[in-house]
Amino acid sequence: MIVQKQTFPLSSLQLACGRTLHDVRIGYETYGTLNAAGDNAILITHYFSGTSHAAGRFSEADVEPGYWDAIIGPGKAIDTDRYFVISADSLANVNAKMKHVVTTGPASIDPQTQKPYASSFPVVTIGDFVDVQKALCDALGVKHLHAVAGPSMGAMQALEWAARYPAMLDRVIAVVPPGLYIEPYLSAMLDVWCSPLVLDSDFAGGDYYGRAEPVRGLVATLKLITFMALHHGWARRFFGAQPRWADDTRDPLQSIEHRYAIDATLTEVARDRARVADANSILRIARAVQLFSVRDRIADMRARFLFIPAESDLLILPAYAERGISELRAAGLSVETFLLKGDGGHLDGLQQIARAADPIRGFLTSS
Amino acid sequence: MIVQKQTFPLSSLQLACGRTLHDVRIGYETYGTLNAAGDNAILITHYFSGTSHAAGRFSEADVEPGYWDAIIGPGKAIDTDRYFVISADSLANVNAKMKHVVTTGPASIDPQTQKPYASSFPVVTIGDFVDVQKALCDALGVKHLHAVAGPSMGAMQALEWAARYPAMLDRVIAVVPPGLYIEPYLSAMLDVWCSPLVLDSDFAGGDYYGRAEPVRGLVATLKLITFMALHHGWARRFFGAQPRWADDTRDPLQSIEHRYAIDATLTEVARDRARVADANSILRIARAVQLFSVRDRIADMRARFLFIPAESDLLILPAYAERGISELRAAGLSVETFLLKGDGGHLDGLQQIARAADPIRGFLTSS
Repeated sequence: MIVQKQTFPLSSLQLACGRTLHDVRIGYETYGTLNAAGDNAILITHYFSGTSHAAGRFSEADVEPGYWDAIIGPGKAIDTDRYFVISADSLANVNAKMKHVVTTGPASIDPQTQKPYASSFPVVTIGDFVDVQKALCDALGVKHLHAVAGPSMGAMQALEWAARYPAMLDRVIAVVPPGLYIEPYLSAMLDVWCSPLVLDSDFAGGDYYGRAEPVRGLVATLKLITFMALHHGWARRFFGAQPRWADDTRDPLQSIEHRYAIDATLTEVARDRARVADANSILRIARAVQLFSVRDRIADMRARFLFIPAESDLLILPAYAERGISELRAAGLSVETFLLKGDGGHLDGLQQIARAADPIRGFLTSS
Repeated sequence: MIVQKQTFPLSSLQLACGRTLHDVRIGYETYGTLNAAGDNAILITHYFSGTSHAAGRFSEADVEPGYWDAIIGPGKAIDTDRYFVISADSLANVNAKMKHVVTTGPASIDPQTQKPYASSFPVVTIGDFVDVQKALCDALGVKHLHAVAGPSMGAMQALEWAARYPAMLDRVIAVVPPGLYIEPYLSAMLDVWCSPLVLDSDFAGGDYYGRAEPVRGLVATLKLITFMALHHGWARRFFGAQPRWADDTRDPLQSIEHRYAIDATLTEVARDRARVADANSILRIARAVQLFSVRDRIADMRARFLFIPAESDLLILPAYAERGISELRAAGLSVETFLLKGDGGHLDGLQQIARAADPIRGFLTSS
């Protein structure tokens, strides 16, 4: 499946914080065809450091497909022969420098000053992301969403849809989800993630565009995020039972500068991610997640839910999803559940999603 | 119980890395009385950021007793009417600036240069810590250890004792222990902890003594360590189900500078800890933990074991202890277990240790 990034322009967007963003531009992808009634659409919402590239390849030469390619495509669980699938980049997308990402965030030019927003970019919320998606759906002629589905922060957006536009959607698929709000512990984790960033002297309070960027802080933060999304099962599979040296000639017993292989690998992964990431955007996305809560709006919801936590998740613990499930059921809402088996941690919400293909297919086709 | 810090001088110590430390000084405390045979001693080994202050108070006015005061004292599980209890500060103790800590580490004066060791301080190991403790036991007239007991890094030292001086001890009590070696995932966690430290420009490669110290990096690292030793159950108990603002007049929706209460609390705790901590020492202790392994020396062990993991531990997962228990039992060694119930995470190894009082007492008095 060859896919194409398109750009959705929105002349103005009223944000939850009270400010208005002008000349918003957001990247999106669609797979499949919208029917005449405009009601066969499924919206895919992405995770913290994700993008709208949920499935397919940009060209035949592309090595990696989109993150949920295992379940989105012709004949797959989210069947593009049957559904019109839409996916959009978030506001303040973490990967602001990625080739195929289009986002309005701190690195964007503020039309009022003709300079990057930088530290002046407002706090944005999951609700704001959803409002952009709603405007995109309207522009595409989508009248009704068969489902909204996403992993992690994507699950938060799907739950926000259920609270914000209850008449517009039938189903929510919440993968590695937090429940109906952010636990204080998870909120603290997001602050801890951001600490290295703001510690980098190049961060300069967020006003670093056109100067040296806070690359070392960004690498440390992305290393921390990557680490916490994983699990000891993953580590053992790739690095064995006991830590291996990063370099056979540099014994960690001889110098604290000598590293272990797992640390070297995580650092390398973080460096790769840092090349396309923006520090200010990470701070905005972290805050958007911290502010997430649909707990006081359960009474508005009409959708049916499928919750898919991952058993080895050390970041968004399955216990959080269990609380959300109980709260929805207590309000009389229908919640099906499927536990993702695996030892890959939070990332199993992406890497092992094929294991949930049948429950997802069944949930989408049931009435 | 009023206790007193004493200093143990050791003229030289051969380290695992091959170097020799001269004029080593280590703080220690003892509780109870050594019997004539010198065989009623119990050694308590401390955790990553712990000290030799395991029990009692330095004066009547002391607000907090030592960390395991709930189980060490007259008539308690580790009964000082019966046992002679010893506890010593580690080499490169994290709390190098704490009033009652005596340690030889990076902040100490190198007798060869008359300047702080700083970045030249060698890598030290759990085995080196144990060798200092063995020399201290010899100096005190201790012929035999009834038990060695400790939480977390203390459990590693207790296990190292069983491998290194098998004829010298009868019992090991390993609380919130990692098993017989450090998992790659845990090794990576220690590197992640240290990232903010080395990012602080005041760190200066570790040669910061007599100059501005890397306080901001130290605070970020200690915040991360504190956070990861806790659990969402703790967070809910103290901060409620949903995150509270740090300041009622500063809505997190209005600025990313506005914080949540849990973040403000963790930052305050980290600042307090940073006042007495030393950055270089954290790097040395992290490496000592990374190097821990007794896996290849199980055949040398003779002790009986009591393993006490904590069910809500997100830092040293109970799964690690389970692997260690299986490996010891497979080698024909006796391992009893007790699971610490609670929702306080890794810190339950300190804060809920009273729940293990009966199993510990039983283990110590059984033959």
